[in-house]
Amino acid sequence: MTIARYDFASDNVAGAMPEVMEALLAANAGAASGYGTDHISQAAGDRIRAALDADAEVRFMPSGTAANAFALTLLASPHEAVLAHEHAHICTDETGAPGFFGQGVGLIGLPGASGKIEVAALEVALAQPDVSYRQPAAALSLTTTTEYGTVYSEAALKALIDPAKAKGYGVHLDGARLANAVAAGFDLKAVKRLGVDILVMGGTKAGSTPTEAVVFLDPAHRRRLDARIKHAGQLVSKGRFLAAPWLALLDENGGMGPWAARAAHANAMARKLADLMPYPIAHPVEANGIFVTMSDAALELLRGEGWFVYRFLDGSARFMCSWATTPEMVEDLGAALKRVSA
Amino acid sequence: MTIARYDFASDNVAGAMPEVMEALLAANAGAASGYGTDHISQAAGDRIRAALDADAEVRFMPSGTAANAFALTLLASPHEAVLAHEHAHICTDETGAPGFFGQGVGLIGLPGASGKIEVAALEVALAQPDVSYRQPAAALSLTTTTEYGTVYSEAALKALIDPAKAKGYGVHLDGARLANAVAAGFDLKAVKRLGVDILVMGGTKAGSTPTEAVVFLDPAHRRRLDARIKHAGQLVSKGRFLAAPWLALLDENGGMGPWAARAAHANAMARKLADLMPYPIAHPVEANGIFVTMSDAALELLRGEGWFVYRFLDGSARFMCSWATTPEMVEDLGAALKRVSA
Amino acid sequence: MTIARYDFASDNVAGAMPEVMEALLAANAGAASGYGTDHISQAAGDRIRAALDADAEVRFMPSGTAANAFALTLLASPHEAVLAHEHAHICTDETGAPGFFGQGVGLIGLPGASGKIEVAALEVALAQPDVSYRQPAAALSLTTTTEYGTVYSEAALKALIDPAKAKGYGVHLDGARLANAVAAGFDLKAVKRLGVDILVMGGTKAGSTPTEAVVFLDPAHRRRLDARIKHAGQLVSKGRFLAAPWLALLDENGGMGPWAARAAHANAMARKLADLMPYPIAHPVEANGIFVTMSDAALELLRGEGWFVYRFLDGSARFMCSWATTPEMVEDLGAALKRVSA
Amino acid sequence: MTIARYDFASDNVAGAMPEVMEALLAANAGAASGYGTDHISQAAGDRIRAALDADAEVRFMPSGTAANAFALTLLASPHEAVLAHEHAHICTDETGAPGFFGQGVGLIGLPGASGKIEVAALEVALAQPDVSYRQPAAALSLTTTTEYGTVYSEAALKALIDPAKAKGYGVHLDGARLANAVAAGFDLKAVKRLGVDILVMGGTKAGSTPTEAVVFLDPAHRRRLDARIKHAGQLVSKGRFLAAPWLALLDENGGMGPWAARAAHANAMARKLADLMPYPIAHPVEANGIFVTMSDAALELLRGEGWFVYRFLDGSARFMCSWATTPEMVEDLGAALKRVSA
Repeated sequence: MTIARYDFASDNVAGAMPEVMEALLAANAGAASGYGTDHISQAAGDRIRAALDADAEVRFMPSGTAANAFALTLLASPHEAVLAHEHAHICTDETGAPGFFGQGVGLIGLPGASGKIEVAALEVALAQPDVSYRQPAAALSLTTTTEYGTVYSEAALKALIDPAKAKGYGVHLDGARLANAVAAGFDLKAVKRLGVDILVMGGTKAGSTPTEAVVFLDPAHRRRLDARIKHAGQLVSKGRFLAAPWLALLDENGGMGPWAARAAHANAMARKLADLMPYPIAHPVEANGIFVTMSDAALELLRGEGWFVYRFLDGSARFMCSWATTPEMVEDLGAALKRVSA
Repeated sequence: MTIARYDFASDNVAGAMPEVMEALLAANAGAASGYGTDHISQAAGDRIRAALDADAEVRFMPSGTAANAFALTLLASPHEAVLAHEHAHICTDETGAPGFFGQGVGLIGLPGASGKIEVAALEVALAQPDVSYRQPAAALSLTTTTEYGTVYSEAALKALIDPAKAKGYGVHLDGARLANAVAAGFDLKAVKRLGVDILVMGGTKAGSTPTEAVVFLDPAHRRRLDARIKHAGQLVSKGRFLAAPWLALLDENGGMGPWAARAAHANAMARKLADLMPYPIAHPVEANGIFVTMSDAALELLRGEGWFVYRFLDGSARFMCSWATTPEMVEDLGAALKRVSA
Repeated sequence: MTIARYDFASDNVAGAMPEVMEALLAANAGAASGYGTDHISQAAGDRIRAALDADAEVRFMPSGTAANAFALTLLASPHEAVLAHEHAHICTDETGAPGFFGQGVGLIGLPGASGKIEVAALEVALAQPDVSYRQPAAALSLTTTTEYGTVYSEAALKALIDPAKAKGYGVHLDGARLANAVAAGFDLKAVKRLGVDILVMGGTKAGSTPTEAVVFLDPAHRRRLDARIKHAGQLVSKGRFLAAPWLALLDENGGMGPWAARAAHANAMARKLADLMPYPIAHPVEANGIFVTMSDAALELLRGEGWFVYRFLDGSARFMCSWATTPEMVEDLGAALKRVSA
Repeated sequence: MTIARYDFASDNVAGAMPEVMEALLAANAGAASGYGTDHISQAAGDRIRAALDADAEVRFMPSGTAANAFALTLLASPHEAVLAHEHAHICTDETGAPGFFGQGVGLIGLPGASGKIEVAALEVALAQPDVSYRQPAAALSLTTTTEYGTVYSEAALKALIDPAKAKGYGVHLDGARLANAVAAGFDLKAVKRLGVDILVMGGTKAGSTPTEAVVFLDPAHRRRLDARIKHAGQLVSKGRFLAAPWLALLDENGGMGPWAARAAHANAMARKLADLMPYPIAHPVEANGIFVTMSDAALELLRGEGWFVYRFLDGSARFMCSWATTPEMVEDLGAALKRVSA
């Protein structure tokens, strides 16, 4: 009997990179005040501000689901809605958490190839008149790296964000895999330039223990923020353990350190796997994911070889690489795929 | 200028005990499936089941606030209320989180000396007739170690739980400091005997990195539990890092390991501090907290000596000991108190 | 300039039938206890129980939106979802109210011609495995008369309800236009036979002042029902004014009185309009609505003639008849349509 | 056996005044567009604006509970709290509805004699520092006529509202019995002068069928208001029936018509009852309620004579007069009280 290998099932099946574990150990010394008021949370926030070149409030939350859902509560009221790609994580993978945090806030799914919102579809949505029987949109949620492993250019993001901001909408960026986008060429400082209001900057999938940095760029969101976070069950008492990983992930003076470097490795592993892939690739391989067209029979054979991967929303099979993926693992999987496809 | 020392401000200002950090490092190896389905979460659940001698569902959450608030959603509907001590953490320190998770669920505060609910007050509450203009109670929430550092005997808990269960109410036990109660003589296996439905078993204040074990003893709560947890933003993807500390805290075969042993140390430190205390002690010192009557002026002087402590709800000054409190720290504080009180 | 005539825009643009106004006047005499505990609410409930031949709890609410949304809170928890036709009122016309009442409860839209859920689509939905990242369905919501003016046969409802009940799902029936379905041949007593758990029995569109009877057929829903209703803002103090219309709508001994008779008239008016209609009819005319294929230009011309009607979700123009629609109004409109289409 | 007479149990046990019933009948003619967009809703709003001398948005809701709870959602976010008298209706009689609508919004009860908030208590509340573990106040809710039948002077309201507004708090006025306050001398135009943000102007207790006018004086609340109301289940389709009573209650040119005149009658009946009252009166009789000190035995005897009245929160027995109370009813009750007290 084969033990399932989850190595390529998701980028959250990997553990944390050694730098992060060392930072946790270092942060463990001595007493620290609670609920995010400690010196480590302050220092980690400083690194993120430096990396983004933005004067923002930064908080750390243990779950991306909650971080996204919480962020949206500041951008759309319950009687309003959020525009997002129809396959965005908030629409399809978070068990309705935005509705829980947002008291029934609406989600309006927009189409677009390979996880990127189509500009024309956004324009149609923005042109909808306000009527009392429908939740009118108040915010735009974007994801990069997208669910399909593609990366928006800054210009492409601008083409979506500008018309939304022109209507007064707030903008949320789900950056669970932002490190991979940065490694693929996205300029982190564009977050501020583009007018993003709240960024969820992913630590977990980038190779950390559980931590997402929620970055509030709009000064209006500062007021009573910690009470808001605690009310929503997202304020952890020993906050230093959510902050410490960022002292490892990012450099002191705005450098993106292992956060970006390890993501570059993950991206490279995906490209390596693409080169070995015997099945048709369904979406451009721009970051750390590969989506391929495989029959159920083929997928079963692969699982029979011990590899567990998910079939995704568009029907393709998804292979995710992480900081922990080694060339040997890729070659090993490549060999299995070759056998299966033979 | 003096740097504030938070050592006695709370038991969550301490870092994590070395055993926990080692367990985190050990758990970091290799890939693990996500969202609490991993082998470490399974093993940690097994240890908790063994320690409680109960066939229960166990999940791990990073915040006690959220763990408590989530637990109450299974015991009381939004139009109902929860009975709790009027100074219980859920009533006074969690920023209304139970109302957020519970969609406006009510909290009914009951009086009682030193944080323990008075039986007569509970009986009055249980005897209230159901009326449409008031949220009728549906659950009883208890806390031990209480907010005032006292520990219920099993008989005292039984005297509160039995009449509540007789009315069909669910019972929640906030065990943020359950380790200290166990160290003070409370039998962990009594949780099941007493009929507790959901236990929040504290890891964080017991000396862990952020983790609370939420133990669902009522089999009716198993259905769709993970979807419920994820919907409420409490399902962390790399779940192993919330579970791993429990492999250090508890022994393999039902022994309570460092979780109870380190709590016994914290309790001993509190007793030591009590012996040195020049101010009147307001509540029985039964676990790891000491509450004393101090004037504002005295408290300011103490802060001037560098020690930060909180004034609590009953007006007393609270000193909390933890696994990390050393005899030297207690003596150091004792000397400062002596100077201040001179 | 033409004043817009709303006569065919919806069946809620009509006033109340004279019988209802007389019942309101009669109910106005003397004092009555509040919040639905009065004798008129009791008597009206009795008539509804007699008409349904069911021992059910009955409450009266002023808004169909709220009645539906409230009902669903008893059938699906926030982390769960409700299956409904993708064009059902709860999915498309109620501004997300189910999510507000249901704390983010999910809605899963199912396809089907002319507003009726396709059995195969329901079966696919019922066969979905429970996973933690998606809100699993817990209830089925049906509407008859449907949004497209069609009426389910009892057998057709049974074909949808039976498999849902077999999975333990609750069943909600949105009967905003149930009177029209009954007038079209649906047996009201089938509601109980079919196993509907909560029926929202429409008064408003049937020709009343604002009132919907919410009928709870599952005895498990009785407990603390009024507290639940009041908590949700749906318990009106002078309850007799929501109940009184039902003393006019229904007969004393189970007869369906003007509620069904006036609906039969509305249905007849729709058939009459169908006979005069120069545009292609998009859905079977089985009750009081007609949906036709008209160009924007034609619709503008019709509005220019003074008639206001809505374009519906499927793109067709919707004409609704009510108890107040007269043959002359139909002929008047028919003539206008003839001119427009010429 | 005696049938309970509810005449003095509450001012909502009375029916509607004849003027209101006539207005309903008049409003019933013809078709009207739905969801509050009709001509009657417009005209009724105009009368309210004229009476208040304020350019405000006006909406009509069937329940005071919901009107208050909804109003508070615009003034305080879920992580915030509302300051109110500890015996205010929103705190004690609405089954936690503010928490349902406000997603766990907090209520902070303030003391004060006879239902009026004590200025010093408000000042203490306003001086509380923001901390993350407590819901900070964001709004002040006032009630006049108060729960104990007393009426604030404009100066007294100003002494409460000014410091709250100075802190940027929103102000809600629960005017369920505002007509009685106006009849007792309160100037309706003071609502605007005082800076009230949302007024719930009572129709029901003033002698109408169910209707409360919710008056939004802050222009910032206009945006997407109807979607917000519908999302919260408070937008009734045949809105004219909630609006029409106001065409009877108020005069056309700002006069306060039967709304105030009938309230003056109710107030006079309360004074007449006070003159006949053999029991000590607990609160100043300034409007339409009388609160007296009666033993349980006496109250039982009175109920034995057929009169049903409630014991109130402060332990006194409450007698409420309404537009429908006649001098004969007062004398009848007075005689019964005399017998009981003999």
